[in-house]
This record gives sequence, C-alpha cells and structure tokens, in this order.
Amino acid sequence: MASPPSWVKALKPAGPQGSELIQQERNRSNLNVDQLSHFLFTRDALERKHRILAVLQQEKVFDKSQNYFAGRIDRFETALARAKKLRQLVTKHGWTQDDKMIANELISEPGPYGLHESMFLITLRDQGTPEQHERFLRNAEQYRYIGCYAQTELGHGSNVRGLETTATWNPDDKTFTIHSPTLTSSKWWIGSLGRTANHAVVMAQLIIAGKAYGPHPFVVQIRDLNTHQPLENIHVGDIGPKFGYNTMDNGYLLFNKVKVPHINMLARFSSIDPKTNKYQRPASPSLVYGTLTWVRSTIVMQAGGVLARGVTIATRYCAVRRQFQDRDAPEWEKGENQVLNYTTVQVRLLPLLATTFALHFTGKAMMALYNANQAKMSQDAGKVGGPQRGAGPEETNAGSDLLADLHATSCGLKSLASFTAVEGLEVCRRACGGHGYSSFSGIGPWYADYLPTATWEGDNYMLTQQVARYLLKTARSVLKGIDPSTNDTTYILSTFLKRQDTGAAFDVLNKDEDIVAAFAWRSAFLTFEALKHRDEQKKPWNSLLVDFYRLSRAHSQYMVVKNFYE
Amino acid sequence: MASPPSWVKALKPAGPQGSELIQQERNRSNLNVDQLSHFLFTRDALERKHRILAVLQQEKVFDKSQNYFAGRIDRFETALARAKKLRQLVTKHGWTQDDKMIANELISEPGPYGLHESMFLITLRDQGTPEQHERFLRNAEQYRYIGCYAQTELGHGSNVRGLETTATWNPDDKTFTIHSPTLTSSKWWIGSLGRTANHAVVMAQLIIAGKAYGPHPFVVQIRDLNTHQPLENIHVGDIGPKFGYNTMDNGYLLFNKVKVPHINMLARFSSIDPKTNKYQRPASPSLVYGTLTWVRSTIVMQAGGVLARGVTIATRYCAVRRQFQDRDAPEWEKGENQVLNYTTVQVRLLPLLATTFALHFTGKAMMALYNANQAKMSQDAGKVGGPQRGAGPEETNAGSDLLADLHATSCGLKSLASFTAVEGLEVCRRACGGHGYSSFSGIGPWYADYLPTATWEGDNYMLTQQVARYLLKTARSVLKGIDPSTNDTTYILSTFLKRQDTGAAFDVLNKDEDIVAAFAWRSAFLTFEALKHRDEQKKPWNSLLVDFYRLSRAHSQYMVVKNFYE
Ligand SMILES: Cc1cc2nc3c(=O)[nH]c(=O)nc-3n(C[C@H](O)[C@H](O)[C@H](O)COP(=O)(O)OP(=O)(O)OC[C@H]3O[C@@H](n4cnc5c(N)ncnc54)[C@H](O)[C@@H]3O)c2cc1C
Ligand SMILES: Cc1cc2nc3c(=O)[nH]c(=O)nc-3n(C[C@H](O)[C@H](O)[C@H](O)COP(=O)(O)OP(=O)(O)OC[C@H]3O[C@@H](n4cnc5c(N)ncnc54)[C@H](O)[C@@H]3O)c2cc1C
Repeated sequence: MASPPSWVKALKPAGPQGSELIQQERNRSNLNVDQLSHFLFTRDALERKHRILAVLQQEKVFDKSQNYFAGRIDRFETALARAKKLRQLVTKHGWTQDDKMIANELISEPGPYGLHESMFLITLRDQGTPEQHERFLRNAEQYRYIGCYAQTELGHGSNVRGLETTATWNPDDKTFTIHSPTLTSSKWWIGSLGRTANHAVVMAQLIIAGKAYGPHPFVVQIRDLNTHQPLENIHVGDIGPKFGYNTMDNGYLLFNKVKVPHINMLARFSSIDPKTNKYQRPASPSLVYGTLTWVRSTIVMQAGGVLARGVTIATRYCAVRRQFQDRDAPEWEKGENQVLNYTTVQVRLLPLLATTFALHFTGKAMMALYNANQAKMSQDAGKVGGPQRGAGPEETNAGSDLLADLHATSCGLKSLASFTAVEGLEVCRRACGGHGYSSFSGIGPWYADYLPTATWEGDNYMLTQQVARYLLKTARSVLKGIDPSTNDTTYILSTFLKRQDTGAAFDVLNKDEDIVAAFAWRSAFLTFEALKHRDEQKKPWNSLLVDFYRLSRAHSQYMVVKNFYE
Repeated sequence: MASPPSWVKALKPAGPQGSELIQQERNRSNLNVDQLSHFLFTRDALERKHRILAVLQQEKVFDKSQNYFAGRIDRFETALARAKKLRQLVTKHGWTQDDKMIANELISEPGPYGLHESMFLITLRDQGTPEQHERFLRNAEQYRYIGCYAQTELGHGSNVRGLETTATWNPDDKTFTIHSPTLTSSKWWIGSLGRTANHAVVMAQLIIAGKAYGPHPFVVQIRDLNTHQPLENIHVGDIGPKFGYNTMDNGYLLFNKVKVPHINMLARFSSIDPKTNKYQRPASPSLVYGTLTWVRSTIVMQAGGVLARGVTIATRYCAVRRQFQDRDAPEWEKGENQVLNYTTVQVRLLPLLATTFALHFTGKAMMALYNANQAKMSQDAGKVGGPQRGAGPEETNAGSDLLADLHATSCGLKSLASFTAVEGLEVCRRACGGHGYSSFSGIGPWYADYLPTATWEGDNYMLTQQVARYLLKTARSVLKGIDPSTNDTTYILSTFLKRQDTGAAFDVLNKDEDIVAAFAWRSAFLTFEALKHRDEQKKPWNSLLVDFYRLSRAHSQYMVVKNFYE
C-alpha cells in the first residue's frame, strides 16, 4: 500500500480525542488499579509477565502487526517460526513451565507445538513406565520427537469407546499392528499433526487373541526424523481451513497395518505381559480422571482472562466512541454522548465485566481444588492418571468421593465458563458497532480461535450429563445417610433435605451469603427433582437430558456465586 | 496435495452409511415435500431457480470447491470474475432483477458489485432528477460507472447527522467543494469502494453561505474511467481484513477540496437554485422512509432462508451422525444412536426449524406490506424516497400513519429476524460438534458473512428505539381517541385499553388465535407501561432503553406469531 499523501497525514480526529475521554473516565474512578491487579494476579506474577514481555518484544518474529493480513500458509509459517524461537528462548533464559505459559498467553495464538507441549508430553509422563520415559519422554522433552495426541476419528469424538482404529497384539514377534479398517477410523482434528509432528500418541482398540479390550494409548512414529516424510503405510495431512485456529495444523492420519514394538504401548496402568500374552488390568478405575480433569480445570482457569480481553476492548472503545446527543441533555451540555452512557450498552457490558471477576475467582478455586486433590493423591501414588476421556453417561466409576466431586466440578464449570466466555466475546464485539466487525477490533479473531473450547475436552452440552450423574449419585448417598460433611455437595443436599418441608427464605437483597444459599437451594431442589424423575418415575435417561442441562447450569452457577462471594 | 494411496482410496465408512440413515429418516415422514416447497416458494420460482442454477453450473468460474482454500486476495479476484461473468449472463439471457437476485443467492457470497447494484443504482433512481438519470443512471446501468454508497465515516455510523464530510456551495463557479476536514471524517466501511468503484454517492453536510443544511447525497467520481487510478486529491483504499465479508472490498475515502459541478447533488427532493443560490426544502419530511424501509424489508424477507441453510445442514448431519448407544435401549437394538435422537440436540434444532417457517411467512408479510404501501404511494407521487437514514430517537416525523407503521414494523422485524438468524446459525454450527468448526460444514463462513446484518441498516439494539417511539406515539393517539381501525397497532392498543380493567384470559393451549391475542396483549401492556414511565413519570429517554428493547422484541414477536398463524 502506498503511503498516504501529506494532506491525509496532516489530519487529526475531531475532538475530544479518545485519549482525553478515557483519561476522564479513569479520573472518575477511585479504584486503586495497582492494588487491584496485585490482588488479582500477585505482584510477582505481574513482574514476571513484564519481564517475559520485554524479552519477546526484542524478537522481530513476535511482531503482531501483520497477523490479520497474512493468508493461512503465511500465518502457519510464522506460527512455526514463533514456536521455534520460543523454544530457544525457554532454553536460553531457563524459563519454567509457568514462564512458558505466560509467554504463550502473550503471543496469543495457537502454536504448532501446542499439542506436543500439552497432551503429548503429559500423556507420556503420566502413562509411561520409567523405561518408556527413557525411550520416548527424553526425546520429546528435547524436541527430537515432536508429538501430538491422536484420539478423535472422523467417525468418533465424544464416544471414545467407539473408536475404530485397531492395535492388534502379535504374540509371534511381540509387536502391535496399528490399522485403520474404515474411512471413519481416520484420525481427524489432531492438533500439530498436519505438518509438524513426527510422533503421535494414538488411541486404538487393543485386540489380543481376537478379543477387544477398549482404547489404549500407543506411541507411533509417523514421519522420518531426517526427511520429515511420512513413513511407509502412513497417510497423513492437514484437514484444511477452519473457522479459526488457522495457526494450528489440525491433521488426519491413517495406518495400513503398521507394526510397532511392545514398548510402544504406554504401560503404566495397563499392559500386556509379552511372555504370557495376557492383558494386565489398570489398578483402579478412577484412573480415567487425571489428565482430563487437569485440562478442564485449566480451561476454567483461563475463561475469565479470555473474556476479560473482549470486555476490556469493548468497554474502552465504548468510553471513547461518541454517537448522538442525549435527547434529555441540558442545553449547556454540548457534543455527543459516549456510547458507554447508553443503558442498552451498559446492560450488555457491565454484567460481563462483573463476570470476568467471578470467573477469575472460580478458576482460582478450581485450580486450588485440583492441586489439593493432587497432593492428596500423591500420598497414595499409582492411583491417578489416564487420559481415556469422555466416558459415556453414568458409566464412569468414582474412585473416591473427592475425585468424583473434582471431576464433576471440572465438567460443570468447564461447560459454564467456556460458554460464558464464548458468548460474552460476541456481545463485546457487537457492542463496538461496525468497527467490531473489523479484524482490527481484535475481538473477532480472538473469539474464532477460542470457539472450539466449547466443543473439545467434552462437548459443553454433553458434559452436563456428567454433572447430573454425579449429583444423582450423591443425592442417593445422602438419602442413604452419608455424612453431610463429606464434601460441599453432600452438605448442600443434606441441608436441603432437612429444611425442605419448612421451606427457606433468603434475604438476597441484604445478605450476600443468602444469595449463595439461594443458589445452593436451587441446585439441591433440581437435583432431587431429577432424582424423582429417574429413580421413582423411571424415566429414560434421554428424556431427562434437558433437565440435566439445567441442573448442571444451576449447580455450576452456584459454584461461581460461591467463589465470587468467598 | 498428493492423491491418497490406493489403500486409502479403497476404504469405506463404517456402516450404516449416511445416505441410508437419511433415507430412513425421510421414509418416516409423511410430508409431501413437493407440495410444501410449492406452497413456500411457488412452482414458478422453483423452476426459475433450477433454470438459473443450470446456467451457472456451466461456468467454471462459479465452481465453489476452492472457496475455503483461497486467501483473501484470491477470493476477491475470483469474486470479481464471478461478478463480471454474472453481469454478462444477465445480458445474454435477459435476466430480470428477480432472476439476478436468485443467481446471487446461488453464488452465495457478497460480490464486489454488490453495492453498485443495490444502494448506488437505487439512490440514483430514487433521488435523481430526470436530467441526473440521463447523466449518471444510464452510465451506471451500463456498468460504465461502477458505484458505491458512501455514508458511514470513521467517526459516525448510526448518527448520520454527525457526519463531518462537507459539501460547500461555491456561488461563483456554481460548484460544490467536497472535503474531509478531519481524520474521523474519512468515509469508512464503504462496500465496493476499496478496489472496484469509480464513482460514489457521498453523503456530506451541505453548506451554503456558511450555513449547514444537514447531510445530502452527491455523486463524485473517484477513479479514472480508463486507468482506474484515484483522481487527484482523492485518497481511497481497502479497510483491510474483516471477520467475514472478505469477497467484498469495503473501503475508505478522503477528499482534499474536490470540486464537483452543480448537477452532482442529487436533486429530486432538495436542491440549490444556481441562480439565487437558495436552498429548496424537501417536499415532505416522510421522505426519510423510502429506500431504507425497502432495504430492511429485504433483510426480514431473507432471514428465514439464511437460517434455513444452517438448520438444514445441522439437521441432516445430526440424522447421519451417530454417537453412543442409548443407555436405556433394548438389548436387540444394536449400534449407536443418531445424535438427532438426543433431547439436548432436539431442543436446540427443532425450535429453529419451526423458526425458519415463522420467519419465512413474516418476511412475505413484510414485503406485502411494503408493496401495498408503494402502490398507495405511487398514486400520490413525489412523496416517497430519500435515503437519509438512521435519524435519532423520536425525531423522525411520520408522514402518514401507514408509512410510520411500515417504518416501525421494518425496524422491529429487521432487528428480531436478523438476530434470530445470526444466533440460530451458531446454535446449528455447535450442534455439529467438532466438524461444525471445519469450514467445510459450510455454517461458519455463512455465519461470518451474515453477521454484519445485525449492525448495518440500523444497529439491532438501536432500532428498537424506533419501534418504541412509534408505539408510544400511537398509544398517545389511541388515548386521544383515534379510530381503532386505523391500522393493526391502533387496533391492539385500543383493545387492550378497553379490556385492561376486566383483564383477559387466553386459552393458549387449545386455541391458536388466543396465542396471537396473548402476544398482542403483552405488546400493548408493555407499551402503556413505557408510556407511563415516559409521559407521567417523566423518566429520561436513556433510562428507558432497556424497557424499549424488551417492548420492541415483544411487539415484533407478536408480529411473527401473527404471521405464522395467518
Ligand atoms: C479445533 C479442534 C481441535 C481439536 N484437537 C484435537 C486433538 O488434538 N486431538 C484429538 O484427539 N481431538 C481433537 N479434537 C476433537 C474434539 O475433541 C472433538 O471434536 C470433540 O470431542 C467433540 O466430538 P465430536 O466432534 O465427535 O462431536 P459429536 O459427539 O459428534 O457431537 C455432535 C452433536 O451430538 C451431541 N451428542 C453426542 N453424543 C451425545 C449424547 N450422548 N447425548 C446428548 N448429545 C450428544 C453433541 O452435543 C453435539 O451437538 C479437536 C477438535 C477441534 C474442533
Ligand atoms: C461489513 C459492513 C459493511 C458496511 N457497508 C457500508 C456501506 O456500504 N456504506 C455505508 O455507508 N456504511 C456501511 N457500513 C457501516 C454501517 O452502516 C455502520 O457500521 C452501522 O450503521 C453502525 O454504525 P456504527 O459503526 O457507527 O456504530 P455505533 O453507532 O458507533 O455503535 C456503537 C455502539 O453504540 C450503541 N449506540 C450508538 N448510539 C446509541 C444510542 N443513541 N442509543 C443506544 N445505543 C447506542 C450501539 O448499539 C453499539 O453498540 C458497513 C458496515 C459493515 C460492518
């Protein structure tokens, strides 16, 4: 684009200037901004962020100014260059995992090593034996192996048990044959697979002597380490353009009877004895929780920040944007009104502003719960881990009540928090009028990249069934007289049972704790209603899904309100 | 991309095949599909569509298979080639305006001549004098002049009176000087301007002898007819990447004291006498309605079809997609459940399916109302036209009650219908799970292109103020005793007034007309509530915007229900 002529360069915006207006708004607030940010994020984290930002800003490759102009191929190449540079910076500055997460947040786009650094490394770590750590994890940590997590297939996402890829045990040469028997068994949507990865953790139906044992994780090399060409009998590629997430190479993958050695089945929890050819069962069924609960908790933790970006952009813009004179404004008040003053703008943005805080504290509480649980589990080693995600309704088996509570909490809050952020971002975009539609508003691309969070790691609609399942189970225990103080859920259900006949009155206008209690009451009421439908009236599960959805929402809202209050 | 190896080509999807499942669903319905489509669209229109489709399919340039792969520049170039080819086909086959609209619908993307063919031509036609038709319209109709409609500026969209571009009358040489005094006066968002147009209708503040007369339309040449280079003292270009609409070159435009002759101010309704240098007022203030009402009516008419595309894709996909066994399914019922059978999928899609029909009939009714009004107006020529859009709250002056009713109806329905379609499309996309996020689902790109409909031609939130303003005004007339049969609004408000003390009971479960009456009652009730706030309690307009929003929704929903019923 040619540089604008000098008469254009000389032009100024009509007054008052945006910077003046925003300063004026800021002057009107008596909030101590530093104090608030330290309270929200801690001084330490903020300093660290500034330090990392300064390092990134030194590197030309992280310049964002051309992001929205580039087509998909250029964007992907830049994303790859950024991922590589980041990796070098991590080594150079000795950044921790937390430092790297901050850097990723600042870079603000999905990167092609994204799945390597999350699901691939974590799965190897959590599910590999020490011998497998030696064989695979070391190479992965040094980025010699770049990996991805290949679970979803063209035909199956939510229903993991329905996966069609097979891994057949060959007792003769002690290998597994990985195979794609149908078109629908193509691995699909796999992040970092399309172009980047040379290895994959492949979830496949384990078959021993003609008998199927369900999906298990296998490490499979898919590209040559030197030429980066697909290995023989492997068909792999990029799945093509998407609504967003175009800096990530989501890919597909098919196998034509590919053999891998015995060590390639991740064997910390279940394995095959190569001598007897016998399957060894996982120690505890609660294994299903580990990784997934962590991933969901992270989504809950991030939702507030994701939404905050949109709310900040929209609120600032609406403070600066002026349109129309207020028709009831006094004579002496000249000029147009800041659109933030219109009540139909406020009613859209201000509740979302409050929501960012509520989500922030909920995210912190979710992580604290997760960490507390981890600490407890590590005393009791060997019982956690396992990424077999997305079991069907009512079929996961709670190992312990704390674990089950954690699992249900993470499901319900993941669903509520990510929907709230997704929908809130679009409200923010629209509040900016026409300019919200420009990529330069920053909200649209951010929304488009975040959108799949509503679908992955458990589709948000389906996760509500997990919450309902847990609440029904807990309600049954409460009816059977379990100790009300077992956890918060048993407590609120027991309280409801005790008081349901006398009823309850909440002073929601004057007492904040009564607001929390009212939300708890609603959740408990809906739980026992659902239980009546299911256990007394024997209604089919499917006929209750909409009730379950509402129940899960109610329960999760209770948790958000509680965390905001606390 | 390399062609897949033969072992991949040999693979089939796991059974049952999608085509079998969809056939099975179709067999279960006793609906006569042909009869329904003839009823909805008429046999004639369907035949015409097939005829046009066949012509388009002959032309390689309309092949859609590469749409989602191309970057913005390629997509734009293809869009330009398509627009040109379409223009040639129109000439070759003698297609009418309706035929061309059908072709555009089939091509399904915003084209670079889009604004030329809508706002530019219409404005020239409606607002030009016969002399101006001769000078500009003929050239435009032959695509010698390619135009756009340049109203919005960087600083002003909704508030048209706030436009900063000036058109100053020079009595000496009988010309106007078009000028951009500030950065915020840059024309912005103008469709077809970035690359395509060589002319623009520019809305600018008319200034005569130092006095401002408000925004008026001027025809301005912006690029050379041979070289297509910008003319001197004109700065023009593309505004860059957007959330969607990337086959359209929305542009910016600035003027450095550009002179145009007297004839370039469109003068059908207001003009300057070049002899006396005096301004001649528009004949009737009701002029503000014309073009805009037509544009909004078109949006209402199209909303049902826009949504139907998403609903059709999602419903078909969910009939074919199978995931999980129903946990209460009988032993003998093998295999996974079609996700359309899950109640949480039905509760999302089926109401939207019904909505497409409701919107379809509402759109037809809206167009009928518009046409009836046009017919009535043409007996009374000279009183219609004028695109000065987006007047502020309560400030437009109703010329006649029918016009005012039409205007308010088009505002309320445009807002409701486009929001319903926008939000419904995202529901459809999500219902498709992970695959909904792929561009190949077709819903995402369609949504992204449609999205600005919620913002342009009156921001959907702001339009509700126009509806409220009209309802308040009508309520005041009804209280003063205007004939209840004047129009439907006076009728429902009078009915409410008569019966409000005795109250009303509606048998909504058994009588469809009672559902309509209940919706009418709600609208009337909210109208008189709002009137109380405004006229008795003297509440500021701004404090009532949220009430007005709800009132407009209620009234528009009443109209939708009424049209569905009728
Ligand atoms: C951008 C992106 C990146 C991804 N990255 C990866 C990756 O790296 N690795 C990987 O393995 N996967 C990945 N995925 C896949 C993702 O995990 C799945 O898409 C997700 O689990 C949803 O599964 P699905 O697409 O099969 O949805 P489906 O299960 O087919 O859902 C379709 C519809 O049916 C409904 N439904 C289904 N079952 C039920 C039921 N029992 N009750 C009620 N309703 C039901 C759903 O709510 C939904 O509306 C990615 C997906 C996306 C979009
Ligand atoms: C894709 C696209 C194509 C376009 N094409 C054209 C074109 O060809 N020609 C053209 O002239 N224009 C075009 N436009 C511009 C479009 O008409 C304007 O963007 C639209 O009118 C909205 O105006 P705005 O952007 O100034 O919004 P604003 O008025 O700035 O709105 C910002 C926010 O303030 C709120 N608000 C503003 N005023 C009030 C009030 N009085 N009361 C309550 N709330 C208020 C709004 O609801 C919104 O949330 C296009 C826009 C887009 C996105």
